Amino acid sequence: MTDHEDRPRLRVAMVGYAFMGAAHSQAWRTAPRMFNLPLAPEMTTLVGRDEGRVAAAAENLGWSSIETDWRRVIERDDIDLIDICTPGDTHAEIAIAALRAGKHVLCEKPMANSVDEAERMAAAAGAARERGVRSMVGFTYRRVPAIALAKRLVEQGRIGEVHHVRAQYLQDWIADPKAPLSWRLDKQKAGSGALGDIGAHALDLAQYLTGDTVVEVSGALRTFVAERPVASEHAGLSGTASSERGPVTVDDAASFLATFSKGAMGVLEATRFAYGRKNALRIEVNGSKGSLAFDFEDMNVLEFFDAGEPSDTAGFHRVIATEPEHPYVAGWWPPGHGLGYEHAFSHQVVDLVSAIAAGCDPTPSFDEGLQVQRVLDAVETSSASRAWQTVPA
Amino acid sequence: MTDHEDRPRLRVAMVGYAFMGAAHSQAWRTAPRMFNLPLAPEMTTLVGRDEGRVAAAAENLGWSSIETDWRRVIERDDIDLIDICTPGDTHAEIAIAALRAGKHVLCEKPMANSVDEAERMAAAAGAARERGVRSMVGFTYRRVPAIALAKRLVEQGRIGEVHHVRAQYLQDWIADPKAPLSWRLDKQKAGSGALGDIGAHALDLAQYLTGDTVVEVSGALRTFVAERPVASEHAGLSGTASSERGPVTVDDAASFLATFSKGAMGVLEATRFAYGRKNALRIEVNGSKGSLAFDFEDMNVLEFFDAGEPSDTAGFHRVIATEPEHPYVAGWWPPGHGLGYEHAFSHQVVDLVSAIAAGCDPTPSFDEGLQVQRVLDAVETSSASRAWQTVPA
Amino acid sequence: MTDHEDRPRLRVAMVGYAFMGAAHSQAWRTAPRMFNLPLAPEMTTLVGRDEGRVAAAAENLGWSSIETDWRRVIERDDIDLIDICTPGDTHAEIAIAALRAGKHVLCEKPMANSVDEAERMAAAAGAARERGVRSMVGFTYRRVPAIALAKRLVEQGRIGEVHHVRAQYLQDWIADPKAPLSWRLDKQKAGSGALGDIGAHALDLAQYLTGDTVVEVSGALRTFVAERPVASEHAGLSGTASSERGPVTVDDAASFLATFSKGAMGVLEATRFAYGRKNALRIEVNGSKGSLAFDFEDMNVLEFFDAGEPSDTAGFHRVIATEPEHPYVAGWWPPGHGLGYEHAFSHQVVDLVSAIAAGCDPTPSFDEGLQVQRVLDAVETSSASRAWQTVPA
Amino acid sequence: MTDHEDRPRLRVAMVGYAFMGAAHSQAWRTAPRMFNLPLAPEMTTLVGRDEGRVAAAAENLGWSSIETDWRRVIERDDIDLIDICTPGDTHAEIAIAALRAGKHVLCEKPMANSVDEAERMAAAAGAARERGVRSMVGFTYRRVPAIALAKRLVEQGRIGEVHHVRAQYLQDWIADPKAPLSWRLDKQKAGSGALGDIGAHALDLAQYLTGDTVVEVSGALRTFVAERPVASEHAGLSGTASSERGPVTVDDAASFLATFSKGAMGVLEATRFAYGRKNALRIEVNGSKGSLAFDFEDMNVLEFFDAGEPSDTAGFHRVIATEPEHPYVAGWWPPGHGLGYEHAFSHQVVDLVSAIAAGCDPTPSFDEGLQVQRVLDAVETSSASRAWQTVPA
Repeated sequence: MTDHEDRPRLRVAMVGYAFMGAAHSQAWRTAPRMFNLPLAPEMTTLVGRDEGRVAAAAENLGWSSIETDWRRVIERDDIDLIDICTPGDTHAEIAIAALRAGKHVLCEKPMANSVDEAERMAAAAGAARERGVRSMVGFTYRRVPAIALAKRLVEQGRIGEVHHVRAQYLQDWIADPKAPLSWRLDKQKAGSGALGDIGAHALDLAQYLTGDTVVEVSGALRTFVAERPVASEHAGLSGTASSERGPVTVDDAASFLATFSKGAMGVLEATRFAYGRKNALRIEVNGSKGSLAFDFEDMNVLEFFDAGEPSDTAGFHRVIATEPEHPYVAGWWPPGHGLGYEHAFSHQVVDLVSAIAAGCDPTPSFDEGLQVQRVLDAVETSSASRAWQTVPA
Repeated sequence: MTDHEDRPRLRVAMVGYAFMGAAHSQAWRTAPRMFNLPLAPEMTTLVGRDEGRVAAAAENLGWSSIETDWRRVIERDDIDLIDICTPGDTHAEIAIAALRAGKHVLCEKPMANSVDEAERMAAAAGAARERGVRSMVGFTYRRVPAIALAKRLVEQGRIGEVHHVRAQYLQDWIADPKAPLSWRLDKQKAGSGALGDIGAHALDLAQYLTGDTVVEVSGALRTFVAERPVASEHAGLSGTASSERGPVTVDDAASFLATFSKGAMGVLEATRFAYGRKNALRIEVNGSKGSLAFDFEDMNVLEFFDAGEPSDTAGFHRVIATEPEHPYVAGWWPPGHGLGYEHAFSHQVVDLVSAIAAGCDPTPSFDEGLQVQRVLDAVETSSASRAWQTVPA
Repeated sequence: MTDHEDRPRLRVAMVGYAFMGAAHSQAWRTAPRMFNLPLAPEMTTLVGRDEGRVAAAAENLGWSSIETDWRRVIERDDIDLIDICTPGDTHAEIAIAALRAGKHVLCEKPMANSVDEAERMAAAAGAARERGVRSMVGFTYRRVPAIALAKRLVEQGRIGEVHHVRAQYLQDWIADPKAPLSWRLDKQKAGSGALGDIGAHALDLAQYLTGDTVVEVSGALRTFVAERPVASEHAGLSGTASSERGPVTVDDAASFLATFSKGAMGVLEATRFAYGRKNALRIEVNGSKGSLAFDFEDMNVLEFFDAGEPSDTAGFHRVIATEPEHPYVAGWWPPGHGLGYEHAFSHQVVDLVSAIAAGCDPTPSFDEGLQVQRVLDAVETSSASRAWQTVPA
Repeated sequence: MTDHEDRPRLRVAMVGYAFMGAAHSQAWRTAPRMFNLPLAPEMTTLVGRDEGRVAAAAENLGWSSIETDWRRVIERDDIDLIDICTPGDTHAEIAIAALRAGKHVLCEKPMANSVDEAERMAAAAGAARERGVRSMVGFTYRRVPAIALAKRLVEQGRIGEVHHVRAQYLQDWIADPKAPLSWRLDKQKAGSGALGDIGAHALDLAQYLTGDTVVEVSGALRTFVAERPVASEHAGLSGTASSERGPVTVDDAASFLATFSKGAMGVLEATRFAYGRKNALRIEVNGSKGSLAFDFEDMNVLEFFDAGEPSDTAGFHRVIATEPEHPYVAGWWPPGHGLGYEHAFSHQVVDLVSAIAAGCDPTPSFDEGLQVQRVLDAVETSSASRAWQTVPA
C-alpha cells in the first residue's frame, strides 16, 4: 500500500448527500485505507442544489469542494468519475450526460424510474464503453462477503442446478399509518415503492447468485395506507408529521412469482409493512446438490447445506464469513470481527476502481440494471393485467 | 381423571396403518392418559386389506381386533367413529359411507383428491351433522401448541389487521433424482404432489391463523424429475430403488400468490426439493399491530413481535410454548420440556372427543376441507391458464 | 414386531407416580409400540402410600394393579423389575432391597442423597450383577437422539482430544421469591438443590460425552432466597402459596470448575434462577479436531464443527437429528418430524429391556451413579472448604 | 456539524500500527465524519521504531507525520493525546510518561502486564487528573450498541438484582498445534495469554454491565500446546510457520468462578481453543426481574427477557440494536443496517473526545483498568494456590 503518490488519481464528484451519499462517502474515505487500490481516489467535489447545505455536507463527509449544478461538474476536466446518489428521477439525465462527457459513472439503484430511461442509460453506457468509459449500478448487497461467498460456491457448482429461489426484503418503517410521506412514497420521485427500492435488491441478488435471469413473472402490488401526513421536510427515511395529508402514489408491498431462464422457480417479496423486520433481505437458493441461505439481519453469516455430506452429520453450515479466505475480508480484521452494512460500499469502490484501472467493465453493468428494470416493469404490468407477463429480452 | 368406567365409551375403528396410522394410534393410546377426556376411547378395530399385515399392525399399534373390509366395519353397531388414514383416493367413498351409517369421521388430509369428491363429502357431513354425527379433517398442525398460541394472539387482536402471510412447507426427501416412486408421486393415488400433501397444510395454517380465506390465486407447479426408479414395494415415504423407471405424475413443487378476502397478501410455497429442509413448515404473519413467525423445525417456539412496545426493547419474543398457560401444554410436562410431532395428534383426539361429547362440531370441518381443496384446485387451474383464478365461494 | 405372545414378559412395578412416574409410564406404554423389544413389558403394579391416589394414578397411567407398600412388591414372584420414581431419600432403601430380592432396578436420578447411600447401592448392584440382576440410573438425557449422536461422533474421533467442556442446566421456576417451598427445596427429601437435581444431568452428560471422568473440582453453591411460602400441598414442581414461611435448605444454584482425568477443563453450572431459561440443558465440547454443541431448548438439533473442513465453508453444522441414521430415530417418524422430552424415556426402556434380554449390564450403571454422586459431593466440600477438592476414585 | 474550523483541535499521536493501530486509525478517521464532535481530532503523528514501515503505515492509515521514538512525541507541544496501541509490556512506561507530560492517554487493554505496572499507571492517571489530563482504557466492547443498551437496561433496573453472570470469550485461532508462535504467546510481551487478552474483555463486560466488582475468584489456567513453530516474523495474529520451535509461555485457556461484591455468582471463561468459535464474546446476566444475553458473533442483537411480562407471550426479545433510540446508532444508518466490529472504536473516540471537551473523566478509567488487572492477577494466584483468592480492594 506504499507509494500512493505514484499511483494515478481517480477524481470523484458525487451528486447527492443524503443517506446514500453518506454511505458512499464513507466508502470513498475508507476503501483506499484498507485495500491496496491501483488508483488513488480523490474526493474532489460534492454536488447539491442548496449551497449552504452542500457546503456543510462536504465538510462533514470529506469532500474538498462543492458545486451546485451537476452540469458544471460534468464539464470539468479535473473530474474522472461521477457518483450519482440522488433520487431515481434524476439518474438518467445525469448519467447519460456524464457518460457522454467521458466520465465514469457509479449510479445508485434503482438505476432509473422507467424502462425507457434505463434503455437510454444502457445505450449511453454501451457507447461510452467503446471509448473506455465505465459504468456500474449500485447493487451493493452483492458485495457483502457472505453473498459474494455464496456466489463463489454457486459458480463452483456446489449447489448444482438451481430449483428454487426465495428472496424477501422485509422492512417495517412505514407499517405505522402515522409515518409521514417522504420522497420515497412519491411515484414521481421514486419511480416505485417497495418494488423498486428494495424489491430491486432482492431481484438482483436472485439473478446474481443463480447466474440466471427471470424470464416471466406474475405479480401483485399493494398500497395498504393510501394517505399519510405530509412531512414538514422531505428529508431522510422518516421525517416529522404534520396535520396535512397527501397521497401515497407508490406500492407499500410487492410480491411475485418468477420463472428463470433455466427453469428455476422464484418467489420474491418486498414490503415496508413487516413489523419487526428492520432490514431483512433474505435469500435462499435450493439446488440439485445443496442449498444456500442468507439473512441480512445476520449479515456476516452464510448458511450452506451440502447434499453430498453423509446424512448423520449433514446440516446447514453456519459459515461466519469473516475468514481471510472469504471475499473482501482480508482487507479488514481477524476472523470473527464482523463487518457492517457500510462495508459493502467500500468493496464496491474497490471493485469499481480496480475495473477502471484494469480497463475492463465493472459489474453490475447498466445492461444488468436495465434488465432488472424490465423485470420490475413486468411485475407492474402483470399486477395490472392479472396474468403472467414475459420479460422482454 | 378417575372413574373411567363411568364415562361413555367411544369405540374407534381406524382404516390404514402406515405413517399416519401409526401417528393416529399413538394419539388414541396417549390422549386418554394425559388428558381428562369426557369419553373413553376404545381402539376397537384396525382395518386393512392384507389380513396378515393388518393383524401384525393391530398388535403393534394397540388395536383390539381387525377387519379386512372397511364396509363391514361401517355396518357394525359397536363402532362409533371411523378414523381414515388411507391414501386420498379412498377418502370420499369411506367417509361418505361412514357418515351415512351414522359414524363420526376423522379424515386425514388432503380431504379428497378432487373438488368434486370434497363437495360430496362436505354435503354428506352436512347431512350427518343434522343427525348429530360429527366430522373433522386432520389438519393436525393447528394443534401444535405454538400454532394454537398464535391463533389465540390473533384472535385477541395482538397483531391487528393482517397485511402479509408468508407460508412455506419445505422438504427434501425426493430432491435426489434416485429417490424411488411411491404412491405419493402417483396422481391417481395422491391427487396431487407437494401442493396437496404439504401445501395443503401451509394453506390451512394461513387461513386458520388469519381467520380469513383466500379468494384468488396465481400459481405455478413444477415437476423437476419426470421419471424415477420403481420401488419394489410402495411402502412408506421412501422405499428401495430398482432398475425399472416410471413417471412422476404429480408436482414436485408449487408456489402461489394469494389474496385474502380482507385484503391481505399471501405468498405460499410447497416443495420436496429444498435440500436441507426436512419438515420446514414455516409461517409468518405481519399485521398492523405486530407479527408472528413459526418454523416447525423449532416447533416448540413462537416468535411474536408487538409493535406497541417501546422501540428500545422491542424485538421478536422467542416464546417457548411449553408453559401451562399455553394451549394443550398443561396436560404434559413442566415448562421447557418440549413436545414433539406426534403430540398434535393427541391434541386432535382431545378436541375431537370433547366436541363429540359436547354435541358440537369439531374443527376443521369438512366445509373447511372443501374450501382448502377449492383453493388448491384454483392453484392448479391458474398454473395452467397462467392467470389469476378466483376461488369459488 | 409380530408374535408378541411368544416373547418373554418383563413384569414391571413402579414406585412413585408424580412427574417422573408419569414420564416413565408414558415410556413403558409407548416403547413396545414403536420399537421391536425382545421382551414384552407389562405394567403390572403401581406403588404408592395413599391407596385412593395410587389407584387413580394407576388407572390414568395404565398400570394393572396397585400396592401401598413397596416391600410387599419386592417379595412378589410376579414382578421382574422395580422402577423407582420417588424422591431421592428413599432410593437407597428400595433399590438395595429390590436388588437383593433379585429384581432388576431402574432408579431415577440423583441415584441417592449421599455418597454413603450411593456406595451401598453400587455394592448391592455389584452383588446382584453376579446373579444376573441388572440395574440402571435414569440419566435420561443421554438418550435424546442429538446427544446420542454427539456421543457417537466423539467415539468416532470426530472432535479429537477434548480440551473444553462447558455445561449448563438453567431453569427459572423458583426465580420468583414468592414461589412456594416444595420437597425439592428440602434437603432431607431432595439431598441437594439445583446441584443434585439438574447439575447431576449436566455433569453426567459432560462425562458421558467425553468418555472421561472429573477428578477434581472447585465449586460454589448459593441459596438466593432463604425462606419461602409453605405450599399447602408439597406436590409437583410448583404448588400453591400460603402465608406461612419455611426455610429453603438446599442450594438455588451451583457452579464449578472441573478437571477431567485426561486434562480437559470443565465449567459447569446449574441454577433455578436464570429467568427466561425454562429447561436449558446446554453442553459444548471443544476438541482438537472439532466441536459439538447442544441446547435442550432446541432438542432435536446437534451443532457440529469439523475443523478438518476447508475454511471457506467450515461452520457449525446444524444437524437436525431426525434422520433414520440417527440413534433411536428409526423407530419414530420421517425426517424432520421432531421428538419431545418424553421420547428419551422410551429410549431408556428400549435400552434397559434390550440389555436385560441380552444378559448384559445396561448403562448408566449404579457405579456411574455413584461416581456422579462423588463429584457432586466434592463440589459441596469444595464450596465449604474454598479450595479444589479431589474426587475419590 | 458545520464550522469545523471553529472547533478546538485535538492533536493525536498514536504509538503502534498493527491490528489495534489499524482499528484505532479507522475510528479517528471516521468518528468526526459521522458524529458531531466538540473537538476536531487531527491525526498528527504515527509512532513506530522502523522508519520505513511506520512511514508506509502512516500513509495507509491517514497520519500526517511519523516519529520513531515515542519519547520525542511526548515532548512535543503540538500533541494533545497519546493513543497507545503497542503490546502490553510497553504500556506502563509510555502512559506514565505521557500523562506526566500533560498528554491525555488512550491505552489499549490489557492496561498493563502486571498489577504493579497498573498501580503505577493508575497513580499517574490520578495525579494527571488533578491537572485536567484525562486517561482511558480501551475496553472497546462496552461501546458496541447492544452492550451499551444492556448497560442502560441494567441501570434502569429492568433486570433487578443480579444473581448470575456467565461470560465467555471463545476463539480458535491457535487450536491447531501447527499455528506459529506470536508475541501474543510470549509472556514477556503479552503478560498473559487468553486470560489477559480476551478474558480481560469478558471480565470488564461482566463488571460493567452489573455495575459491580468481583471480590474473589477461583481459577484455572491451562496451556494445551507447550511448544509451537517459530514464525519467521512475529507480526499479526498468525504468521507463517518454520521448522524451529519455541515455548508457549502464556495460558491457552482460563476459566474462573467469581463472587461479586453484592453476591452475584460469576462463571467466566476465555480460550483460544474452541474450534468453530471465531470471536464469541458472550455474556448472559440473570437478575431478579429479567435476563440479558449477548453474543458478539451476532453483535447487533441483544436478547432481553422481562420477567414481568405475562407468561403466555414472555420470551427473550431479540432486540436488533440498530434503532436511533439505541446508544450511538443515531450517528449511523437507518434501522436494520447493522454495524461491525470497528464501529465500537469510533464510539470510543466519540466518548473520549466528548469527555476531554467537557472537562470530565472518560470511562473506563485507569482505576478500572487496575481493578481488572487485580482480578486477573487473583485468577493466576488462585490457579497456582488451588484455592479461592480475594481480590485486593
